[in-house]
Amino acid sequence: MKLHLTRIPPVLLSVSLVSIATVAAVADEGMWLFNRPPRKELQEKYGFEPTPEWLEHVRKSSVRFNNGGSGSFVSSDGLVMTNHHVGADSLQKFGDATHNYMRDGFYAKTRADEKQCLDLELNVLDSIEDVTQRVNAALKPDMSSDQAFVARRAVINEIESESNKKTGLRSDVITLYQGGEYDLYRYKRYTDVRLVFAPEQQAAFYGGDPDNFEYPRFDLDMCFFRVYEGGQPVHVDHFAWSKAGADKDELVFVSGNPGRTERLDTVAALNYSRDIGFPYLLQRLYRTEVLLNVWSGRSDENARRARELFFSAQNSRKARDGGLAGLLDPSLMAQKKTAEEELLAAVAKDPALQSSAIAWKNVADAQKVRATLLHRYTIMERGVGFNSTLFGIARSLVRNAEEKGKPERDRLREFTTARRPSLELELFSTEPIYKDFETLKLADSLTWLTSQLRSEPQFVKEILAGKSPQERAYELVHESKLDNVDLRKKIYEEGESAIAGSQDPMIVLAKLVDPSSRAVRKLMETKVEEVERQAYAQIAKAKYTIGGKDVYPDATFTLRLAFGTVKGYEEDGKQIPFETTMAGLYERSKEHHDKPPFDLPARWVERQDKLDLSTPFNFVCTADIIGGNSGSPVINKSGEIVGLIFDGNIQSLVLDFAYIDKQARAVAVHSQAIIEALRKVYDAEPLADELTRK
Amino acid sequence: MKLHLTRIPPVLLSVSLVSIATVAAVADEGMWLFNRPPRKELQEKYGFEPTPEWLEHVRKSSVRFNNGGSGSFVSSDGLVMTNHHVGADSLQKFGDATHNYMRDGFYAKTRADEKQCLDLELNVLDSIEDVTQRVNAALKPDMSSDQAFVARRAVINEIESESNKKTGLRSDVITLYQGGEYDLYRYKRYTDVRLVFAPEQQAAFYGGDPDNFEYPRFDLDMCFFRVYEGGQPVHVDHFAWSKAGADKDELVFVSGNPGRTERLDTVAALNYSRDIGFPYLLQRLYRTEVLLNVWSGRSDENARRARELFFSAQNSRKARDGGLAGLLDPSLMAQKKTAEEELLAAVAKDPALQSSAIAWKNVADAQKVRATLLHRYTIMERGVGFNSTLFGIARSLVRNAEEKGKPERDRLREFTTARRPSLELELFSTEPIYKDFETLKLADSLTWLTSQLRSEPQFVKEILAGKSPQERAYELVHESKLDNVDLRKKIYEEGESAIAGSQDPMIVLAKLVDPSSRAVRKLMETKVEEVERQAYAQIAKAKYTIGGKDVYPDATFTLRLAFGTVKGYEEDGKQIPFETTMAGLYERSKEHHDKPPFDLPARWVERQDKLDLSTPFNFVCTADIIGGNSGSPVINKSGEIVGLIFDGNIQSLVLDFAYIDKQARAVAVHSQAIIEALRKVYDAEPLADELTRK
Repeated sequence: MKLHLTRIPPVLLSVSLVSIATVAAVADEGMWLFNRPPRKELQEKYGFEPTPEWLEHVRKSSVRFNNGGSGSFVSSDGLVMTNHHVGADSLQKFGDATHNYMRDGFYAKTRADEKQCLDLELNVLDSIEDVTQRVNAALKPDMSSDQAFVARRAVINEIESESNKKTGLRSDVITLYQGGEYDLYRYKRYTDVRLVFAPEQQAAFYGGDPDNFEYPRFDLDMCFFRVYEGGQPVHVDHFAWSKAGADKDELVFVSGNPGRTERLDTVAALNYSRDIGFPYLLQRLYRTEVLLNVWSGRSDENARRARELFFSAQNSRKARDGGLAGLLDPSLMAQKKTAEEELLAAVAKDPALQSSAIAWKNVADAQKVRATLLHRYTIMERGVGFNSTLFGIARSLVRNAEEKGKPERDRLREFTTARRPSLELELFSTEPIYKDFETLKLADSLTWLTSQLRSEPQFVKEILAGKSPQERAYELVHESKLDNVDLRKKIYEEGESAIAGSQDPMIVLAKLVDPSSRAVRKLMETKVEEVERQAYAQIAKAKYTIGGKDVYPDATFTLRLAFGTVKGYEEDGKQIPFETTMAGLYERSKEHHDKPPFDLPARWVERQDKLDLSTPFNFVCTADIIGGNSGSPVINKSGEIVGLIFDGNIQSLVLDFAYIDKQARAVAVHSQAIIEALRKVYDAEPLADELTRK
Repeated sequence: MKLHLTRIPPVLLSVSLVSIATVAAVADEGMWLFNRPPRKELQEKYGFEPTPEWLEHVRKSSVRFNNGGSGSFVSSDGLVMTNHHVGADSLQKFGDATHNYMRDGFYAKTRADEKQCLDLELNVLDSIEDVTQRVNAALKPDMSSDQAFVARRAVINEIESESNKKTGLRSDVITLYQGGEYDLYRYKRYTDVRLVFAPEQQAAFYGGDPDNFEYPRFDLDMCFFRVYEGGQPVHVDHFAWSKAGADKDELVFVSGNPGRTERLDTVAALNYSRDIGFPYLLQRLYRTEVLLNVWSGRSDENARRARELFFSAQNSRKARDGGLAGLLDPSLMAQKKTAEEELLAAVAKDPALQSSAIAWKNVADAQKVRATLLHRYTIMERGVGFNSTLFGIARSLVRNAEEKGKPERDRLREFTTARRPSLELELFSTEPIYKDFETLKLADSLTWLTSQLRSEPQFVKEILAGKSPQERAYELVHESKLDNVDLRKKIYEEGESAIAGSQDPMIVLAKLVDPSSRAVRKLMETKVEEVERQAYAQIAKAKYTIGGKDVYPDATFTLRLAFGTVKGYEEDGKQIPFETTMAGLYERSKEHHDKPPFDLPARWVERQDKLDLSTPFNFVCTADIIGGNSGSPVINKSGEIVGLIFDGNIQSLVLDFAYIDKQARAVAVHSQAIIEALRKVYDAEPLADELTRK
């Protein structure tokens, strides 16, 4: 694990992706756009030139998991490969008291046995269209930040809806280079996705939290789905399988969807992340981890219900701990500071850029505003004070009723016609909702809310209806009827009248908090994000004027191409090898007396003798990846699968802020390990054959 | 577990024990003073009259564990009984890479095998003297709160040192009834304490965190020490052993040292605890729990090193979670509010009490000041920003150098002559200090500190010496020589010159932060605690004038007598029985497939057939107990041991703020279980014989 963008609702992606284009890349740096690939870099360093056909084939064979990961088509019959931890959300939702697919794994021996996912959406990038001019034309120079935000949202909503209506494709306008460019990304959407194979979590996530983000590793973090349309597997572009797999010093590529980087944040913005943003987020992650760990300890069934969320909390905590350590490294900060000072000095010397000079101060001022909004925004608009699936449903229903009456251009982004299919997929999911688990999460978050909103006791009292958090959570969860999908559909269709008349306590609560939540969202959008967007656009302009525009933009959870070399690194004076072998797995288990989380799954003990223990298991490369890249294929120059990205090492956790390649590495499952395990551990010969057939 | 006052340094006890005397008790309420026992209550409800001899015998047979718990003498040869989790601190310090006494237990078959504890101090209450008049005489009515604090500290330091010089006994002036009374407690101090027996932690803490503060329970949470003087076991007063043990509906007594209650905090003070104090503390506990859990997961040896601290963090977290839930219960708050309004109304009607009316406002104002000091006080003076044993040592050495030059009356409380022996016991302990574990804790706490002190970047930079928290922690821990006890003694003796010349990085750091730390302590002492003390003294006076003085004061980690009835309770419509049996242990293990933390120790599996499974295991009673009561003997009217307190149930966690007896229960090990286990599981016949001989 876990380069997984977990549970980031659309509204959040828009919040977090405000950062700016990077300077010209060195070494193997870069998360490159498919319409602006790193031709020069590849040519100079590797003598490799990607042809248009090569690029198109890679793009069409790459898959975005809309719940926060990446994947790839790996057979002519619509087979998709990703990580176990990307599939985990689907595995979790299949389970019940007698089936723990996430823990125990799954294999459909025949197509008929494949299990249809409840609410999984896959996207394949179909085309990219530059819409910068149209977006910019909607903005007038004398607009206030409030007006500019509304005008930009309006034109983007329109572009997306027009495109969706015309092509039927999912249509997202992506802000690149911090507003230096707006591109319309059109995706083919797949929603009939069926589970084919997952190993036991203990094989996928061997070594658990202690080994997470570590290397050397021994994880079979893989999962296979099959995509259907009209009841039949799709026949689309796909990657071929490399027999040899990744080899030392080989040039490899990673095609995936990195979620978010902040490489060119100003120093003020990084200071905000270091001193406020990260610590505040970490507090909640620690709290959630303890809550779920304790609850999971009470029974196997509790553990099963909380499993995906628990691992996700642990993973985020470790990732953020590492990111914060990077921000607290004075050498990183000094480097950022020097670069900023140099750029500012260059700006000062160029008369044409004088007007940009104010941008850095504007970003700094926006951080101060952000700090004042952070708590309220997190509690209300992110819904962290109401941590409950049912509350999320109630809020979507309440907002839907209000938004659907508005003209398309004025709607909240996630309620436009173009985005409605994804909203509905989630809202009408038959994902099981466990009342005890809901009560646990909601009681804890309401408890947390009371101290966060302590300056507003009257509002807290209304939220709690004069009860204790525990009592209130119990009542809300047990009296709400929103676990009934048909009821949700009915309320969604009826809209305003259904909401106005509803006595469902979750809906009543969502109505109570919505004005306050919308208010803080509006402030965040107009007084922080819009200010940042304009300021970063100026900074970006200054950068391009001074440094040229042959650069990649910060990550935006859209398809990017990274490249690098398969190679090890030195750590504490020791040479860490580029790959591990299956023998290493058994050694590691022995070192730890086979105790959790280093215990071997039963199957792996039984089948040890059958395995070729010299098979490469995991390997590392220098490609530039980040959260969201989980499940990305690693391919060679011939476009063949040589591995499967599933993690970065500890040293790579600073890649949020800067690319380094001394020790930072992407970690992947080797293609040979996948085949070896499928054939000899899982008796999944047909699946292995499907992957390797020509 | 865990009614254990964990790691509360003296300075904190003085902070936290500012609250006020309770009103006349009802039901089995009360933590009564031995010089003001609940004669009337016992007579009226139970027809029992404790004689002076009975009280003296109980007092002299009761033991305080100075590291935060209670115990009792249980044989004529100085045998002391307490909980495993009270002994845990000593067990932890004995361990090394090949001995894990805390996990595996210990039994000294002969006296020669008994293991001397490294820094354990036991206290037996010798006498109580009322010094109220002398303390009050030192204060003048027109003193500012700064002057009053200094004057009171001076007279208390003097009284303690005089008494200590005269009697050789440990002498502590205790503030009771919030300054309504000052009593001088003299203790016999024992420091040659040897470990005799401890079971495996898995037997003592069966069910782990999930079952902590729960009932029904099946825990053998016991530990035995022997007290020596002059190389020989002491022969002192002790409790006899009851053969039958606790029985249903029986009157029982608990003699122990409850640490801290806030029963008569004003509503403003409770609001502070609910909205600020508890949430802030819980944040740190969550963080610590995750840190230690993750580190422990990396190896067995890590787990051993972190064991005691980890369990202590878990225990505090659960206790505080429960306490906060109590504060968030509107019915509790409504009751407190009504009582306060009634008292205020009575005060308003009584001309003699008019001057007290301002006290409630003064308490409320003090909370506002406390809120502004909380973060800095916690980071600096509590040392939470420098979580390292070596830092604690460095600070004690730095402060000792400064304090020893001052007149006795002006010293910080913990550096007076009277308190010096306890200070030295801790400072010169040969407790093992693990550099990796120290680095872990210090790096984490320095990381935390950076965000807490974000408004003082220059100070943070000096603390970190321009390095990252990780790098700085490593350097501090590995370059400090303070793990050498002889060096500590040398610096302690030499004082100022040794400190001035020291290049030890921990000492240099302690010197850097000490002025700031002392400054915030002074503010907390004079602007918050002194204000509260004066205000609560007025409130107490009003209470006594109106309600009479036959009451018990809030808990102060001094010896108290509680009483109650052995009885079960109703929960969710089910009757919870007053006791469990050994059979229940095996059933619980089976229910959970013998998986941790419900797995049985190997010995208990092997010996199951030998045990009389109908033996009572744990039981509950209505006695009024709280943290610090861990290890208290439960005795019957004849002064015989019938049980051993080790926990309160979840419903008892609100006892910090109010006594209730509908469901709140004290949980104890049954005396029969102790003997049965010693004889049949642990082959400790001699120990069982010693306990039960007449």
